[in-house]
Amino acid sequence: MKLQVTQENLAKALNNVARVANTRGTLPILANVMLKTVGTRLTIAATNLDIAITHYIGSKVGEEGSITVPARLMQDFVTSLPSGVIELKLDDYKLHITTDQYNSTINGVSAEEFPVMPAISEGKSWTVPVKDLKQALQQVLVAAGTDESRPVLTGVYLHSNDGKLYIASTDSYRLAEKEFMTTKEDIQLLIPASALQDLLRLLSDQDDSVEITHDDQQVLFKVGEVELVTRLIEGSYPDYRKLIPTSFASEATLSKSDFVNITKVSSLFARESAGSITIHLDAEQKQVSIKSIASQLGENTASATADVVADGSITLNSRFLLDALGTLSADKVQIRFNGKLEPCVLQELGGDDYTHVIMPLKS
Amino acid sequence: MKLQVTQENLAKALNNVARVANTRGTLPILANVMLKTVGTRLTIAATNLDIAITHYIGSKVGEEGSITVPARLMQDFVTSLPSGVIELKLDDYKLHITTDQYNSTINGVSAEEFPVMPAISEGKSWTVPVKDLKQALQQVLVAAGTDESRPVLTGVYLHSNDGKLYIASTDSYRLAEKEFMTTKEDIQLLIPASALQDLLRLLSDQDDSVEITHDDQQVLFKVGEVELVTRLIEGSYPDYRKLIPTSFASEATLSKSDFVNITKVSSLFARESAGSITIHLDAEQKQVSIKSIASQLGENTASATADVVADGSITLNSRFLLDALGTLSADKVQIRFNGKLEPCVLQELGGDDYTHVIMPLKS
Repeated sequence: MKLQVTQENLAKALNNVARVANTRGTLPILANVMLKTVGTRLTIAATNLDIAITHYIGSKVGEEGSITVPARLMQDFVTSLPSGVIELKLDDYKLHITTDQYNSTINGVSAEEFPVMPAISEGKSWTVPVKDLKQALQQVLVAAGTDESRPVLTGVYLHSNDGKLYIASTDSYRLAEKEFMTTKEDIQLLIPASALQDLLRLLSDQDDSVEITHDDQQVLFKVGEVELVTRLIEGSYPDYRKLIPTSFASEATLSKSDFVNITKVSSLFARESAGSITIHLDAEQKQVSIKSIASQLGENTASATADVVADGSITLNSRFLLDALGTLSADKVQIRFNGKLEPCVLQELGGDDYTHVIMPLKS
Repeated sequence: MKLQVTQENLAKALNNVARVANTRGTLPILANVMLKTVGTRLTIAATNLDIAITHYIGSKVGEEGSITVPARLMQDFVTSLPSGVIELKLDDYKLHITTDQYNSTINGVSAEEFPVMPAISEGKSWTVPVKDLKQALQQVLVAAGTDESRPVLTGVYLHSNDGKLYIASTDSYRLAEKEFMTTKEDIQLLIPASALQDLLRLLSDQDDSVEITHDDQQVLFKVGEVELVTRLIEGSYPDYRKLIPTSFASEATLSKSDFVNITKVSSLFARESAGSITIHLDAEQKQVSIKSIASQLGENTASATADVVADGSITLNSRFLLDALGTLSADKVQIRFNGKLEPCVLQELGGDDYTHVIMPLKS
C-alpha cells in the first residue's frame, strides 16, 4: 500500500470512525481501524461487531493494500499533524506516515484478521432528509432505555402505520414519539439507540439526505462518504400507544424558557428527594408553579405566568421534565394530564407531530 | 437580617467564595458560606481553615444579622435566578430568598458556630500590579509540587534578594523562577500553591493592583472587593539557585509553536515510556528533532527548523516540556543544556526574567 491523502480528509474520517473502535473488548483487533484501498479511494473502517462505520476518502493510490492500526494512536497522531499532504506507505506490517516535518511508523496487524464487516446484500432502500432525521433523533433518543436487561427498550422503534412513519422510544418511565414522514413501505425496525447516537454525530448539515437500507437483521445508513451498519434488536416492541392519553383534565400553556428556568431552580431543592418536584396549574392565579422540598436544606416555590385551561397538580422527576423540555423547540409549550397518577403529556403549542410522555412520581 | 442585593453581585461573590467551602471535610459547617451584614455591606465568606476568602458587596440593609447556609446549594440557586433584585430575610435560622418569581427558604446554621476567620492585625503591606502578579503565577504555579509528604515543595517561594523580588517553585523534577519587581523590603514567604491557584482565579483584569499584607504566619491578598487570607508554610526553602546552570554546551533557538507541535506529536508515541522523548539539536541540518519510541506501537521522529548554536541530545518528560513551553509567551524560545545528565533550561529569546528548568530522564 502506498498512497497520498490530505490531513483534513484523513483526520475527519478517523474522527468519524475511531469512535466505535474499543480498546476494552475481548478481541484486541477491535481497538484497530482498518485502512484499505478500493480503486482510487481509501476506506477507513472500524467495528465493535454490533456497529460498523466506514468512511471513504479520495486519495492518490500508488500501490493497493490494506492494514489495521491502533485507532486511538492513529486518530490522535493524524489530528495533531498540520494540514497538507500525508504519505502512507506499508512495509510488511509497518505503516510509515510521512509529511514534511514528521516521519513516523505505526506497527499494524494484517487486515485479514479484521472481522468481516456486516453487509446487506438484498434489502429495501428509501431516503429521508438529513434535517428531519436529525431533529427526530434529537427528540426521541433521550427517552430510550439504557438497561441492558431489557434489550427491547434500548432500541428506537421505527415503524409505519396508516401510511405514516413513526419513530418512538421509551424507558418505561417516559416515552417520546415523532411522526416522521409519509411512507408507502411496511417498516418495523428496532434499532439500537447507541447506533443512532453514533449516526446523529455523523449527520452533517452539508448533506441533504440519508439512504436507509435494511433486511431482517440489520440496517445500513449512507450519508455522504460515510456508511453506518448496525444489527437490529430482536423482540417485539411494547404497544406504547395505549399509554398516550387523548383527553385531559388539567391543561396549561406557558413560555418554554420560563418553564425551563423554574424547573431548573426547583431541581436544586429536589436532590434529596431523587428529583421529585410538584407542579401546580392554577387558573385563578394564571400561573404554573413548582414546589420542591429538601427536608434538610429548605424548600422552594417558583412560578411562571401561564394560560391555564384547567387546574391540577402532578409530581414529576425534574430531570425527566428538563429532558422533555429540551426536546421542544417552540416558544410556547403545553402540559396536560389527568390527575396525579396518570401520564403527563408535553407538546409544542400547535405541534401535534411530537409527543413526550412522563409517568408521574408518587407524591 | 433583612436586605436587598442584586443577583449579579451575589452570584459573583458566591462564585468567588464557595470554591473553598468543602463538603467532604470533618467539620460540616465548613461546607457552608457565611452571610453577614457590616454597615451597608454584605460580606460573603468561606474557609477551609487554611484559606479564607471574603467578598464584600453593596446592599440595601434593612436589618443587620448573620447566618451560614450550604455553599453549594446557595451558589447553584442564586446563579440560576434571573438578574435583578433579590431580597434576603432571616427568620430564626431560616433564610428566605425572594424575587418576583421565586420564593425559597434555605435552612441555615448560626454564624456563631462558624470558625473565626484568620486575620492579620499587624504586618507589612505592599502592592503589586495585578497584571504582573497574574503572569508570574501563571509561569511558576505549574512547577510547584503536589506531594503532601514534602510540604515545603507544595509552596511557592516569594523572596527578595539584592533589591529584587523573585517568585519560584519546584517539585524537584523541574523548577520555575520569575524575577518579579524591585523592592526595598526583606521578604521571605512560602505560600501554599493551592492558595495562589485560588488567588489567580480571583485576579480580574478590571483591577489594577493587589495589596499584600503579611506577618510571620499568614498572608492576606486584597484585590477589589475580595480578600484572600492563607496560612504560610513553615520550613526553609531549598537553595534552588544552585541548580540553574549559567553556561551551556548545547544551545538552539526555534519557533515556540513549532516546538509545541513536534513535542505534542512525539508525546503520542511516548505513552508507553512514561513520556520519555529524546531531543536532538543538529547544527548541520539546522533543526531540532524529537524522537519517541513505543516498542509495541511504533516510533516517531518530528523535526523543526532551528538556529542551532551547538549540537547535543537530551531526554525529557514530554509533559514537563509541554508545561514549560506553555509558560513561555514569546514567538522564539531557547533550549540550552550541558550533556544528557544535567538540567535543561528553557527561556524566551531575549527574556532573562523567567527561567524554567527541567531535569533530564535517563535515556
